[in-house]
Amino acid sequence: MAAVATEYGVKGSPETEHPRKAIGWAARDDSGVLSPLPFSRRNNGDCDVTIKILFCGICHSDLHSIKNEWKNTIFPIIPGHEIAGIITEVGRKVRKFKVGDKVGVGCMVNSCHSCDSCKQGFENYCPRMILTYNSIDTDGTKTFGGFSDMIVVNEHFVIRFPENLPLDKGAPLLCAGITVYSPMKYFGLNEAGKHLGVVGLGGLGHVAVKFGKALGMKVTVISSSQRKEKEAIERLGADFFLVSSNTEQMKAAMGTMDGIINTVSADHSLMPLLLLLKAHGKMIMVGLPEKPLELPIFPLVGGGKFVAGSCIGGIKDTQEMIDFAGKNNITAEIELIDMDYVNKAMERLAKADIKYRFVINVANSLTAA
Amino acid sequence: MAAVATEYGVKGSPETEHPRKAIGWAARDDSGVLSPLPFSRRNNGDCDVTIKILFCGICHSDLHSIKNEWKNTIFPIIPGHEIAGIITEVGRKVRKFKVGDKVGVGCMVNSCHSCDSCKQGFENYCPRMILTYNSIDTDGTKTFGGFSDMIVVNEHFVIRFPENLPLDKGAPLLCAGITVYSPMKYFGLNEAGKHLGVVGLGGLGHVAVKFGKALGMKVTVISSSQRKEKEAIERLGADFFLVSSNTEQMKAAMGTMDGIINTVSADHSLMPLLLLLKAHGKMIMVGLPEKPLELPIFPLVGGGKFVAGSCIGGIKDTQEMIDFAGKNNITAEIELIDMDYVNKAMERLAKADIKYRFVINVANSLTAA
Repeated sequence: MAAVATEYGVKGSPETEHPRKAIGWAARDDSGVLSPLPFSRRNNGDCDVTIKILFCGICHSDLHSIKNEWKNTIFPIIPGHEIAGIITEVGRKVRKFKVGDKVGVGCMVNSCHSCDSCKQGFENYCPRMILTYNSIDTDGTKTFGGFSDMIVVNEHFVIRFPENLPLDKGAPLLCAGITVYSPMKYFGLNEAGKHLGVVGLGGLGHVAVKFGKALGMKVTVISSSQRKEKEAIERLGADFFLVSSNTEQMKAAMGTMDGIINTVSADHSLMPLLLLLKAHGKMIMVGLPEKPLELPIFPLVGGGKFVAGSCIGGIKDTQEMIDFAGKNNITAEIELIDMDYVNKAMERLAKADIKYRFVINVANSLTAA
Repeated sequence: MAAVATEYGVKGSPETEHPRKAIGWAARDDSGVLSPLPFSRRNNGDCDVTIKILFCGICHSDLHSIKNEWKNTIFPIIPGHEIAGIITEVGRKVRKFKVGDKVGVGCMVNSCHSCDSCKQGFENYCPRMILTYNSIDTDGTKTFGGFSDMIVVNEHFVIRFPENLPLDKGAPLLCAGITVYSPMKYFGLNEAGKHLGVVGLGGLGHVAVKFGKALGMKVTVISSSQRKEKEAIERLGADFFLVSSNTEQMKAAMGTMDGIINTVSADHSLMPLLLLLKAHGKMIMVGLPEKPLELPIFPLVGGGKFVAGSCIGGIKDTQEMIDFAGKNNITAEIELIDMDYVNKAMERLAKADIKYRFVINVANSLTAA
């Protein structure tokens, strides 16, 4: 296919615009059905590393994106931003890595390196940050994610895996892990003895519980149903479990929490959660409800509380997070699947039918057929 | 009138429950009309000071309260929590003050002194904090505010006026001033060079502009109309003025502000204001909209921003604030009125027809007739 100019500036077809052949699983339209797509990757630049992708986690953002639920998807799209693999090539200016290193790539593959956010180590808030997939890269081509056999990334955006951390169970930390770790650190919700609430026990929430406990915090899970109580406490180590519809339980816990990590993407009421916070308590939204939520002002003002948003985290913090995970043997709870199960996995994810993260065994199951 | 037991625990009638005769202007019902009411104050205790009230500012909360708009008013109510006066008596254990001192009393007259908030100097978030009016005091009687001739207060809750600060123009700082100063300090919006937005240019907003400028900040006022532009810039010293309905102006200012003090109590859209904030920007709500506001989550998450509430401030910070005001000659812009103008003033306040704070010349105009 000849190169075509399109509204999104792609220089050529995904298959021919770069010199190196690659294969991924892509959605072609907002049905979101994934199937094999031959595409291409750039040559390894001076500051780049090439990574053979071994595993890739499935994040809820992947599901939103392949179905174009955020109305910003450019098809075809190859999702995946919880990438773990092995370096197969390094550019001549690469300092941090060598061939054979176990590494990961999260949600970002580039940023401007010069704005205030970049300078402060928050590349995640750089206005020119380039996402791992569905972004336009600096060369005008589109980025493709980790549901693919290999990726070429500037070394700055590559995370070193601790030796002891398994690549499959560690992969989800690159998005789910840093998404909760970064605001916990930034907002001081990482101190032993403090009381952390975690709303929603999914991919993000279950990792927040593990981090909170490893940090010596008191951790309470708040969930819409009792279903996960035993597991939250016995398997994940939470101290308490509240069912949000149980007004007695909620009332008894009023004013006890220093902070809450709220992972819920569905519409929900903030009022009862704000009441759980102490004075000066902090609620951090890491889910992305499509519609605005109702924000009651009285409990905010009366208690000097706040509702913050937080989006993944910077590269320095991501490395710190995964090193912390290594030291404390923190991994995600995963269900390892083959590539050809991915469409079924997306269906189950839509129903929250997963404890707690799907990870694709990419290298062992990716086929072009 | 004999002592009566009521649902709110008043021991006797306002006029006889305490030994010292006092006179104030009270609302008897939710018409909110104020008229003279003989009442009583307690004897001066060991840790108390007695204050002859010279001036009292009118806060929008007074208006809400006398009309029972927050549904928590116990009638009769004597409002007023921006009290400035002279000490006429001190208890034997009083250490900070002597007779003749110029002092102020703000929104609080007591708290538990032992909870975490009290220990950290945030008596304003103490669950047992006692408001200057419309609260039940430790002895079971109701508190009455500063639209009255005198008040007896535990010295901990009394603020020393700087020598140079006029009592009339300084009185509003005890509520309006600390309400904006406290969150500016707590959230780090008090550093030279930072860009502060102030939404709404009323009693609170105009003081926020003055504090921001005295702190060396860049200050932008955001208002619903152009009406106050000249005054905001020429009289109050703001650097810029944005009309919130002017989408071009608002767009040009996107992503430029470190923080916003939002003083608006009416329903309004948070989205355009959140877009004015830089990454990690902070919006502080100090107004009290009755109904929940719509909180869009995307701009919060995408920029790591937060929406906080803040309610007045602690005693230590209030003293610090008024000392800062003294050093920098910061006062409120006031219209000084006699007591018998107060009902008219309330009407005008309801229409925001005041630049920027009414202050009652209490001692010179309070009559029992």
